[in-house]
Amino acid sequence: MRVLSSAVKDHVDQVVHIEGWLHKKRLLGGLTFINVRDRHGLVQVVIQDKAEVEKLRGMQIGTVLAVDGKVVKEERAPGGAELHDAHLSVSVPVTAELPIEIDKPLSHRPDNLDTLFEYRAFGLRNLQETAIFKVQAAITRALRDYFYTQDFTEIHTPKLLAAATEGGAEVFKIDYFGKEATLAQSPQFYKQIMVGIFERVFEIAPVYRAEPSATTRHMTEYTSIDAEMGFIDIAALKDLLSGLLNYVSNYIWEHHEPELTLIRATKPQLPEVVPSLSMAEIHERYSKATGQNTVGEKDLRPDEERWICEYAHKELGSEAVFVADWPASDMKFYHKAQADNPELADRVDLLFRGVEIATGSMRENDYTVVMQQLKEKAGGNPEDPGFKPLLNAMQAGMPPHGGFGMGLERLTEKFVGLNNVKEATLFPRDINRLAP
Amino acid sequence: MRVLSSAVKDHVDQVVHIEGWLHKKRLLGGLTFINVRDRHGLVQVVIQDKAEVEKLRGMQIGTVLAVDGKVVKEERAPGGAELHDAHLSVSVPVTAELPIEIDKPLSHRPDNLDTLFEYRAFGLRNLQETAIFKVQAAITRALRDYFYTQDFTEIHTPKLLAAATEGGAEVFKIDYFGKEATLAQSPQFYKQIMVGIFERVFEIAPVYRAEPSATTRHMTEYTSIDAEMGFIDIAALKDLLSGLLNYVSNYIWEHHEPELTLIRATKPQLPEVVPSLSMAEIHERYSKATGQNTVGEKDLRPDEERWICEYAHKELGSEAVFVADWPASDMKFYHKAQADNPELADRVDLLFRGVEIATGSMRENDYTVVMQQLKEKAGGNPEDPGFKPLLNAMQAGMPPHGGFGMGLERLTEKFVGLNNVKEATLFPRDINRLAP
Repeated sequence: MRVLSSAVKDHVDQVVHIEGWLHKKRLLGGLTFINVRDRHGLVQVVIQDKAEVEKLRGMQIGTVLAVDGKVVKEERAPGGAELHDAHLSVSVPVTAELPIEIDKPLSHRPDNLDTLFEYRAFGLRNLQETAIFKVQAAITRALRDYFYTQDFTEIHTPKLLAAATEGGAEVFKIDYFGKEATLAQSPQFYKQIMVGIFERVFEIAPVYRAEPSATTRHMTEYTSIDAEMGFIDIAALKDLLSGLLNYVSNYIWEHHEPELTLIRATKPQLPEVVPSLSMAEIHERYSKATGQNTVGEKDLRPDEERWICEYAHKELGSEAVFVADWPASDMKFYHKAQADNPELADRVDLLFRGVEIATGSMRENDYTVVMQQLKEKAGGNPEDPGFKPLLNAMQAGMPPHGGFGMGLERLTEKFVGLNNVKEATLFPRDINRLAP
Repeated sequence: MRVLSSAVKDHVDQVVHIEGWLHKKRLLGGLTFINVRDRHGLVQVVIQDKAEVEKLRGMQIGTVLAVDGKVVKEERAPGGAELHDAHLSVSVPVTAELPIEIDKPLSHRPDNLDTLFEYRAFGLRNLQETAIFKVQAAITRALRDYFYTQDFTEIHTPKLLAAATEGGAEVFKIDYFGKEATLAQSPQFYKQIMVGIFERVFEIAPVYRAEPSATTRHMTEYTSIDAEMGFIDIAALKDLLSGLLNYVSNYIWEHHEPELTLIRATKPQLPEVVPSLSMAEIHERYSKATGQNTVGEKDLRPDEERWICEYAHKELGSEAVFVADWPASDMKFYHKAQADNPELADRVDLLFRGVEIATGSMRENDYTVVMQQLKEKAGGNPEDPGFKPLLNAMQAGMPPHGGFGMGLERLTEKFVGLNNVKEATLFPRDINRLAP
């Protein structure tokens, strides 16, 4: 019976059978130690018998093996115990040396990222890398748990679309049996349509953007967390996002503190209600504090995003902050202006640790207004197969509704403390990278 | 405070405020009744006051409205209660009549499917349609729950790939900044690579197949449930699939019996251990029973799949059955032959209610053998960016491992009792359909 690394310490003085990968070999004070890795971590094994030491000759990192040995308490070993009197048996030999060392933290320096990604197929076996994606899996699980508690229904919407609707330039085109199709940049219209059925829906699925520059913030493919809910106002949307961020943070720190500690992540300071500032207020405070004048600008500068996050952390006790009251001029056709101030959009962005992680807004739900905005803002043809389903749903009655989109990789990046969204992606894709 | 339809019955003799969509109007014995739909179902409202009856004039199905009314017990009403002395207020008027009636079951006759899909944006508001996708969301949730109990980690693998690796003909091609990229048909190689990191991984995400014919079984995009696990044999894979199918079935019937009953689904008969028959055995029994001779054939005929499912149901008390011991001749390069009988592949398919719902197999984990099979079976170049990451992982040591792929839509179709995989897809895609 196989015992997993996490359970070895429960078998002191017994002989256990472990299976895994050779992760490290070293000689210390005349003794040979190996670390065996399995899905729960490492087991330290002391190799004493000469015939056993001999087996290690030429055995490369990655070798798949089984070890039978007696469990001995040892505070300095991973998990607080190690195996003695070990007997090794190789299941899958590895004879080639790995081109990178995976038993110590891999460099995330910008000039090493290409190497990091090039060797992903085994570089991810490094425990720090593994920890990032263990936490990412937990984030995804926590997100869904939270949506379930809020009575959301999960949906699966198509990524193959007939026509470029929004943002034509950044859309990938496919050869669809000789005709042209495109890849979805977002499930925006479909999630809105689905409000008419389930009221509250979410989807966590890939989206595609023909992003022509390889930045630290953008990829050509990422996992989008999309939610949309009906019979709400913008305040309810803020409550949802506040609750979600807190839930995810608490969940990952409750269930994955060892992994988070290993990668030196810190638990974010998050009040139950994330503070909210208007864009005008942020411009004013930033301009006063830095001497830069951003008053009247229609967006936040990247430096301003960082500054307001630091300000919120220090002054408001929150590492997240909402940016409210965006100018209406940049609204998309399906967005809604504020009822009492049509110069402003009914939109809220969520900043977290220096960057925007979610964009939320109320959507225009009046069919006549949507039709008018489609013509004015998007120059769109209501018969366009990309717009028509949404317009059909609107015509059949849509309640006040709103939602948000958020990138899983960026959220992971910020929770675990990385500098580039690609470091939080198993196999990142950008203009220069389609492999591994 | 809004009260949801499911909670109305808890407020007998109180005045409640409900919000939703006008779902149905009718006159019965001189009284006007309306049904209001929200995310939990319907509320029946009796309209008595003349001014209120007047408001309904010209009000179309889909109108978003609020109703205040007194809750009265009424066995014949949905949920066992209805509203009296109702006051209506329209939030979003709908003036156009829907082109289809959504308050009675929509036709799923093959010649009506185009209409069914064409009007999806509001046709899904029909309660039977809604029920299908409520159950689908529950299936997805149950699948993940089960994977969590089995210590699997969720992964997100890229769908944008460099090169056509497997099954070149059915691969979609994309214009990737002037170069050619392809869309993933399966996360096969990535999930295998990830066994080297997490041992047990799963992914539920879209995959794409340029399937040139519009059948009842195939689409160009579907949601693939993929799992892969290390340090196992084919028996463990069968255990996993048996456990999973039982878990999902029990979960949906425990949590969604009303929806399943509404769409006349029946709970499948599933023993804890799904029975397994070899392909040779099935051919023999089928040939004996039907007079058709399939002995020696390398696959099951569609009629044979149906027959063996009926046989398993009647004779073995199971609506699911494994097909084991496939001929090795059709193996893909990453598949493994049986150690003691290399004429047979270490593969198992799962049939459920007449069709194959999952294909599982052990993968060849010996680097040298994989390299040889790649050349022999796929004529593949190991330097191809599509193969290289998997080969890198193999070279760095992979344990015995196997896994399966399963389509969410087909699984849904079989659990709820439909005849076409597209009926279990919100917005289906095939060679003829890219919208809505």
